[in-house]
Amino acid sequence: HPTYPVARQPNGITLHTLWPDRLMVSPCCRYVSKAAAKTQMEFEYDGPSMKTEVPGPRSKELTKQLGEIQNVGAVHFFCNYEESRGNYLVDVDGNRMLDVYTQISSIPIGYPAEFPMFTSFSSQSAFVNRPALGIMPPENFPEKLAESLLSVAPSGMSRVQTMACGSCSNENAYKAMFIWYRNKERGHNIPSDEDMSSCMINQSPGCPDLSILSFMGGFHGRTMGCLATTHSKAIHKLDVPSFDWPIAPFPKLKYPLEEFTRENAQEEARCLEEVEDLIVQWRQKGRPVAGIVIEPIQAEGGDNHATPDFFKKLRNIARKHGSAFHVDEVQTGGGTTGKFWAHEHWGMDDPADIVSFSKKMLTGGFYHKDELQAYRIFNTWMGDPSKNLFLAEVLNVIRRENLLEEVTRSGKTLLQGLYQLQDQYPNLLSSARGQGTFCAIDIRDDATRNSIILKARDKGVLLGGCGDRSIRFRPALVFKEHHVHMFLNVFSDVLAEHN
Amino acid sequence: HPTYPVARQPNGITLHTLWPDRLMVSPCCRYVSKAAAKTQMEFEYDGPSMKTEVPGPRSKELTKQLGEIQNVGAVHFFCNYEESRGNYLVDVDGNRMLDVYTQISSIPIGYPAEFPMFTSFSSQSAFVNRPALGIMPPENFPEKLAESLLSVAPSGMSRVQTMACGSCSNENAYKAMFIWYRNKERGHNIPSDEDMSSCMINQSPGCPDLSILSFMGGFHGRTMGCLATTHSKAIHKLDVPSFDWPIAPFPKLKYPLEEFTRENAQEEARCLEEVEDLIVQWRQKGRPVAGIVIEPIQAEGGDNHATPDFFKKLRNIARKHGSAFHVDEVQTGGGTTGKFWAHEHWGMDDPADIVSFSKKMLTGGFYHKDELQAYRIFNTWMGDPSKNLFLAEVLNVIRRENLLEEVTRSGKTLLQGLYQLQDQYPNLLSSARGQGTFCAIDIRDDATRNSIILKARDKGVLLGGCGDRSIRFRPALVFKEHHVHMFLNVFSDVLAEHN
Repeated sequence: HPTYPVARQPNGITLHTLWPDRLMVSPCCRYVSKAAAKTQMEFEYDGPSMKTEVPGPRSKELTKQLGEIQNVGAVHFFCNYEESRGNYLVDVDGNRMLDVYTQISSIPIGYPAEFPMFTSFSSQSAFVNRPALGIMPPENFPEKLAESLLSVAPSGMSRVQTMACGSCSNENAYKAMFIWYRNKERGHNIPSDEDMSSCMINQSPGCPDLSILSFMGGFHGRTMGCLATTHSKAIHKLDVPSFDWPIAPFPKLKYPLEEFTRENAQEEARCLEEVEDLIVQWRQKGRPVAGIVIEPIQAEGGDNHATPDFFKKLRNIARKHGSAFHVDEVQTGGGTTGKFWAHEHWGMDDPADIVSFSKKMLTGGFYHKDELQAYRIFNTWMGDPSKNLFLAEVLNVIRRENLLEEVTRSGKTLLQGLYQLQDQYPNLLSSARGQGTFCAIDIRDDATRNSIILKARDKGVLLGGCGDRSIRFRPALVFKEHHVHMFLNVFSDVLAEHN
Repeated sequence: HPTYPVARQPNGITLHTLWPDRLMVSPCCRYVSKAAAKTQMEFEYDGPSMKTEVPGPRSKELTKQLGEIQNVGAVHFFCNYEESRGNYLVDVDGNRMLDVYTQISSIPIGYPAEFPMFTSFSSQSAFVNRPALGIMPPENFPEKLAESLLSVAPSGMSRVQTMACGSCSNENAYKAMFIWYRNKERGHNIPSDEDMSSCMINQSPGCPDLSILSFMGGFHGRTMGCLATTHSKAIHKLDVPSFDWPIAPFPKLKYPLEEFTRENAQEEARCLEEVEDLIVQWRQKGRPVAGIVIEPIQAEGGDNHATPDFFKKLRNIARKHGSAFHVDEVQTGGGTTGKFWAHEHWGMDDPADIVSFSKKMLTGGFYHKDELQAYRIFNTWMGDPSKNLFLAEVLNVIRRENLLEEVTRSGKTLLQGLYQLQDQYPNLLSSARGQGTFCAIDIRDDATRNSIILKARDKGVLLGGCGDRSIRFRPALVFKEHHVHMFLNVFSDVLAEHN
């Protein structure tokens, strides 16, 4: 049940807003004053409410239906998005769950309840008229890019290219690095006749034997270029041809990082040394490293952290060897670590040559330095400008409601809670870690981890796993301290059952 | 100026509908009767109207602005999509052009004028709540798939997987073929320990040395897997590492096909022989062909046709050698050839194992046979269910207005017109060809082709090039005979200037 009064339309639809400074516009042009809207902005359900096991009968029925159409091996349950609000996801059986996984970390400010965008005719046009952005962009495209993506551009980057999803973002970022590297090798950007003819048949020098250095445990997507740099789980890569590209070890650190500084520094030094060795080896075997790609926190691979010192040194190694440095913020970006980009925690002036994004940014794409732009980064849609309109709204909410401060505050409470539980259940839990609300904890073993996730779901809390035996916490940016406490209470109950 | 009366709102917004059977709903719940809407369904501008050169001053200003943000080497001009209607694209300088290119062939039924979808709260929810479709689909997902993609599924295919764009569709289709092929080789789908460990470091047998056979002149996208099968223009492939995969010649036929049957049959036989040779060769060098990918008409590569006989024999070769057969209908699909899928012109019972789509289908994805499904075809978004809602509406319009018949009729008129012009300008034009409105003609040389496209634009007709020196015609499905005549008049004038 709602904790605040809500406006109810004759048709039974409930309207609220997460955009407090805007007029709330109902479908029938009934304007509600700012003050009235204000009273509703905080509306949210007051807690989980479970009606059936999950998946319930309706979800099972729909899963069976969908199974006639496509593989449903990964489907958890079906959702009622109309009834979902803020931090609560409602399923088709009426179960209302506190969402600490948010569609694989892709919902920025929770499930919104009202949609100011659709009240304007010109916004609607942006949804039905999907342009070929690279040749015929809409009039407001530069302005909307400025209001959305550019307003949160990482330090040193004033250029951005949108793409439809995370994999396409990384694929195209890799291409930009290859093109940049080859132009650097040539000393100019005019290909030879041999380049032009050999590339048509997939042969070098036109299709050069260049490589991208990636890290064991990294995840950068599942299309074939990305997949050659993904090394988180075998199942992602199995049976798909790949490239002979170098793979460096990612530091395996002890947590909390600040309590193991010496051992962690040694481990990071070992990995950095290996990176340099690999760059030299691959250059020697005729497959120079055009770029290095890394996540600020390896997410899918198990929430593996490294220190700012590691990233600074890695960035210097890239510079020293003439390789581009690509920071993949598809999962870490968008505010969840308490800074808009996780790499901002490194405190560097020149942190990267390319920063890719997707998920909570609502559109895929990548920021890049001037010299990494290329005419050849192109496809029909090149993103979807309607997503930029949403993102501009989302960023306004993040700013107006100081959500990064909220994330930092909630994140501290969450991590403290995890530390306490870890002390309480030393045989069950270890390595609590996190930045902002981007937190994780290791569980005794894979089977126990999976059982805990399912039990928590039955009690109305949605969690996700990562790595071999970790649970990752990925709430929306509107996850507040009272949500943390609600989560910790349920989690504590579930742990007690597994001790 | 409009040819039919239109409803004008106080705010100056003009509302029309391309959805005649629906109530027309204005933003303020003013319901207009079906009969009233009917009088407006045919509304469209009555012809091109040019105010400035293209790009005009406003487009140039915006291109400069966008140039500060991203590469604008491919930008033609900026559009006013709110004012664009039916077959007419309006730019930001007020130029109104007959659109025979339609955003690189990606607009199915022209630029709609009214959006019934947005009047329902639950549809709006589908736009702002983007689910991770593979794990938590919305309640109406199976139903909407049935109403949209499944209702036009190619013969023999009851399964479909959505994806965000054409490249991702093909990348994932290739993965499905690789996985299927490896399971077939194993005799079961349980990977060995060696498979699991070797794939983590990009090595065989886990990442097997399998290949996809593609055709010279083909275009299948620009991500790295797709790009290894794309051979239309060097600039697409240059500087990007690739795979050692076999590339067969695509028949170079003489047009009209029916006038050169013997020569064309010989050319097709030559290409088919080469296909079989390549399959054997690649098997011998340890890179078996898991799949063959081909477009029914090579579009980007120059609108190269082949006969149904060629495709029948090719499909049999695939079957004989145990390779999957993937028909890429990203550009040819969606009704533009007069049948919903171009491969339906082949008249085969079992035309393909996989059919991929995007562009006019509004969402990417691929249909596939049961045995090509895989749990491992997965990413965060896996398409965008809001696009399925649009597609369901678009398909309703196509059916209600018999647009495939319209396309067939307009296409015949268009091709006849092109034949006449070709007779009139034998030194300028050759090889007029087409299926439905999916037509093309060759121009004397590249420079003349480009000049004709620009001159036509100045006269209010938008065209696109393809191949070395072809013009491709890609109108929307609402391109009627009077549009064909309007186009032919302008084209004729432009040709006269180039003779």
